[in-house]
Amino acid sequence: MTTVAAYAAPAAKAPLERTTIERRAVGEFDVLIDIKFAGICHSDIHQAREGWGEAIFPMVPGHEIAGIVSEVGPGVTRFAVGDRVGVGCMVDSCGDCENCRAGREQFCTGSGMVGTYNAVGKDGEPTYGGYSQKIVVDEKYVVRIPDGLSLDVAAPLLCAGITTYSPLKHWGAGPGKKVAVIGLGGLGHMGVKIAHALGAEVTVLSQSLRKKEDGLKLGADHYYATSDPKTFEELAGTFDLILSTVSAPLDFGAYLGLLKTGGALVNVGAPEEPVSLNLFSLIGGNKTLAGSMIGGIAETQEMLDFCAGHGIGAEIELIAAAEVNEAYERVLASDVRYRFVIDTATI
Amino acid sequence: MTTVAAYAAPAAKAPLERTTIERRAVGEFDVLIDIKFAGICHSDIHQAREGWGEAIFPMVPGHEIAGIVSEVGPGVTRFAVGDRVGVGCMVDSCGDCENCRAGREQFCTGSGMVGTYNAVGKDGEPTYGGYSQKIVVDEKYVVRIPDGLSLDVAAPLLCAGITTYSPLKHWGAGPGKKVAVIGLGGLGHMGVKIAHALGAEVTVLSQSLRKKEDGLKLGADHYYATSDPKTFEELAGTFDLILSTVSAPLDFGAYLGLLKTGGALVNVGAPEEPVSLNLFSLIGGNKTLAGSMIGGIAETQEMLDFCAGHGIGAEIELIAAAEVNEAYERVLASDVRYRFVIDTATI
Repeated sequence: MTTVAAYAAPAAKAPLERTTIERRAVGEFDVLIDIKFAGICHSDIHQAREGWGEAIFPMVPGHEIAGIVSEVGPGVTRFAVGDRVGVGCMVDSCGDCENCRAGREQFCTGSGMVGTYNAVGKDGEPTYGGYSQKIVVDEKYVVRIPDGLSLDVAAPLLCAGITTYSPLKHWGAGPGKKVAVIGLGGLGHMGVKIAHALGAEVTVLSQSLRKKEDGLKLGADHYYATSDPKTFEELAGTFDLILSTVSAPLDFGAYLGLLKTGGALVNVGAPEEPVSLNLFSLIGGNKTLAGSMIGGIAETQEMLDFCAGHGIGAEIELIAAAEVNEAYERVLASDVRYRFVIDTATI
Repeated sequence: MTTVAAYAAPAAKAPLERTTIERRAVGEFDVLIDIKFAGICHSDIHQAREGWGEAIFPMVPGHEIAGIVSEVGPGVTRFAVGDRVGVGCMVDSCGDCENCRAGREQFCTGSGMVGTYNAVGKDGEPTYGGYSQKIVVDEKYVVRIPDGLSLDVAAPLLCAGITTYSPLKHWGAGPGKKVAVIGLGGLGHMGVKIAHALGAEVTVLSQSLRKKEDGLKLGADHYYATSDPKTFEELAGTFDLILSTVSAPLDFGAYLGLLKTGGALVNVGAPEEPVSLNLFSLIGGNKTLAGSMIGGIAETQEMLDFCAGHGIGAEIELIAAAEVNEAYERVLASDVRYRFVIDTATI
């Protein structure tokens, strides 16, 4: 066991504060990681405030982790001390079910995926996330951050990157394809960068034109305000793929109308309340409404390699750990361009 | 112009009655077809009763047409007198838009697809469908009914067959795949036959077990009643693909729960009212809700060749034209196994 400094929410909705936690001893297949940077994901706030149901406290959030290997167990074969590594949304799964074998560990149907925090590990102990100085993780759930990708801008790729890369790849974003990204936040800005790097023609659909200049710099070819009804007339039947990164309830009939025949609207963000959908908006045009949740370990590695190859990191605001509560408020106010990252040296 | 006997609805909701209509002279690229059989599709009733909005009267329904070529225009190259042919849901489109060029004429974005009836042709005249003795159609919208497929059981393939074949193929029904078909009616029974012939393991999900024996004979491997809540427990996470052929509003959350990770629920039937959908039922499991509408001309030919190769026709009740109004009532009461087909010699 190692005592490690961390930032934790002591109870639901309570401000995060500095504390210490225990990390397990490095086991046979474990990697000890000196965490250097941890991104702040909107879902950290949801969970710390019990917006998604009862949670485990104290809670150390953080599933966008980048750091350096400082110790490895005797059975570890893939990593060595000094390696630059990342950990995303999960730190364990059964490894044996159909989904785990297919590289979709996030949908493990055996023991279930073990979240990086706010979960219970196979040892029966709660998991604690990235707002801390060290973490011990089974090497199977650790990915390599390629040289040339700075650890600070790599951290958010572990959630925001894979969450957008996976559906963009699966649904065929690439040369000759017109892709729209709804929302230009933490997820959306990664969606724009990755879709552009995949070779697609990218359009941002944002509530206003406030971030238009940013969007075009990030790789978008076009930028439209969804508050303008003319947008929906002008872009009718335009897109092969629309990626929705927002959690506001959308008028799905209107957005499905922007798809070409055979097109897909994929949701990685979603409102908590049910939406109303007229199925004829899917039938008339062989259209698809789909969902996507993060990605598996191998695909996360593939995404990191892709991002490194294309010089893609997240756009970040680096903060000290003591600023985390203020950062949460700014995330909720959509006042971040585009991801807060905690410098864990400041914990 | 040729005067042809037909059965028509003189006005919305009025009973169909015998009448005569004019067919245009056979043009350069036209085929004159002696209609032998015409299937009764549920959508014939919707349209004859203006359930889908204002319609054109008198209306001669029928878009499941099988017959014999009796004359061809001088420019016709693909058909000759005596050929066994079919006509489905459309008799024209622009031929030049992206969708037409891609063989998705049903989604023509140029002049729009011209329906086989209840539409206006390029000549400005209303189109009249298959409940008649002859029809004149541009050869591009005529398909060949292979030898070995009787014309009576082939007729319903022109709508019910292609409506189920197209999504089953597109969404990967085949060996090693578990496919469920919701509803065992005109569409559903074709879905079962085709999914079975494609090599999938087929399950019928029907309100009751009333038609279980039929379902198994048609090729289903399993048959479950959706009125039994245990069905949803037992089959959770089972299917790669679910084809919904019903127009009743479904609890989509429950049905999406029957899909494996990455699975798709495709609707070819749909309730007229919007449905309520929680997007987390798509996100949790990378699932898809899709729609599909008939199929293009080349795919319709492919479907007919596939059905002939596998000895697949519709299960039909052959009726005389004078029985059409009674048949409509029985369709509405789901009292047909599984498609009414009019013997047009009786008109």
